Amino acid sequence: MSELSRRSGVPIPTIKYYLREGLMMPGTATAATRAEYGQPHLRRLRLIRALLEVGGLPVASIRRIIEALDDESVSLHVLFGTVQYALPPHISARPGDADWQAAAHEVDALLAGLGWQVEPDSPARGLLAGALVALGRLDQAPAGPSLRVYAEAMRRLAGLEIDSVRMPAEAGQAPEAGADGPAGAGPAGLGLGVAERTDALESVVAGMVLYEHVIIALRRLAQEDASARRFRPAAME
Amino acid sequence: MSELSRRSGVPIPTIKYYLREGLMMPGTATAATRAEYGQPHLRRLRLIRALLEVGGLPVASIRRIIEALDDESVSLHVLFGTVQYALPPHISARPGDADWQAAAHEVDALLAGLGWQVEPDSPARGLLAGALVALGRLDQAPAGPSLRVYAEAMRRLAGLEIDSVRMPAEAGQAPEAGADGPAGAGPAGLGLGVAERTDALESVVAGMVLYEHVIIALRRLAQEDASARRFRPAAME
Repeated sequence: MSELSRRSGVPIPTIKYYLREGLMMPGTATAATRAEYGQPHLRRLRLIRALLEVGGLPVASIRRIIEALDDESVSLHVLFGTVQYALPPHISARPGDADWQAAAHEVDALLAGLGWQVEPDSPARGLLAGALVALGRLDQAPAGPSLRVYAEAMRRLAGLEIDSVRMPAEAGQAPEAGADGPAGAGPAGLGLGVAERTDALESVVAGMVLYEHVIIALRRLAQEDASARRFRPAAME
Repeated sequence: MSELSRRSGVPIPTIKYYLREGLMMPGTATAATRAEYGQPHLRRLRLIRALLEVGGLPVASIRRIIEALDDESVSLHVLFGTVQYALPPHISARPGDADWQAAAHEVDALLAGLGWQVEPDSPARGLLAGALVALGRLDQAPAGPSLRVYAEAMRRLAGLEIDSVRMPAEAGQAPEAGADGPAGAGPAGLGLGVAERTDALESVVAGMVLYEHVIIALRRLAQEDASARRFRPAAME
């Protein structure tokens, strides 16, 4: 365990805490008071730290994600949902608020127009509606067409990401697995070792959370550049 | 003030706190113990609440933004920077960490390749480097070309936004104001009433913060759709 702590930079008491909380799989017992830890433990620690430090997720949310990840009956689509629905911020619906209702309808209309398959209780709907309400109150509500430009850009990036998921067809519910099994209950991990399945899923989970930061960082950098070009003429000389 | 509280939904003690903290401009005194508040106060309250509730900014950061907003000598480019640099999360550089150094160099190379004008101390550089380090440790580091695809998508959106800033040429340092004045010290508000300048800047500030939520929400919605299409075959029947 001290080697694991050294290589991950995570203090031993913290590792013990993760073990107790069920976030980390136990090591292989080699004696009554000794256990061996290996590459899977190091990866798991890095995943936990990434979700905690970069993703800003509370331990309770990380536990939910890891339970889904370790549960072979959970399909990849459900795992994606578990991760995404755990991500902050969560905006509460305000059913009594007329502005909120109008914004929620606008979100419904946008998604219907795009033909996107999104669950009615997806928290991202509330996140979008909340931002639209606040923008509307400051006379900055985006026009429908401009919202679609953003949506199309995000659709392209999400498509690239989902396509790049390197999962064998047997893990989760890939189309090739056949549509005869009920969604969300496919025999994940068939023909794939538990360790490989876990590795692949950990990468997918980390990618989902961390790419949001990549996108936000790149957007801010792009904004600074665009602002410099338009509003800082001295820099153009 | 009770009317202002009713229309904004912000409790009177909170409004008084914003007044004391200098976040809100005082009302027009009509008697020793009475003051009148109007549309600018309502807009300012909505801006503060949007930055606080949707943007997640602490009051100290909001104060810095509002000081810049109310200071007519601050150019639009500097105001943009003030807002953006106040936004969480802030990732500390880890100069002693070899992975961090490599990621910081990758960010430098990306920005140089794109030809973006970004200050060396822009916190978005650290945000991107931090995400790249965490992704790399989980074998999910994006290849350079894929990072460029994301960057180009963000450049297009940032360009749209900056172009849509509806500021008269006189406010801030628009190119038409001439490159003879030093950057960041232009005579903002020329030919524009203080109230109109403040209104326009408030909208710009709110847009910068709230559009991040629009983007993240749309990305999550797009992801759910892409995942449903690829990993939930039953939904396609």
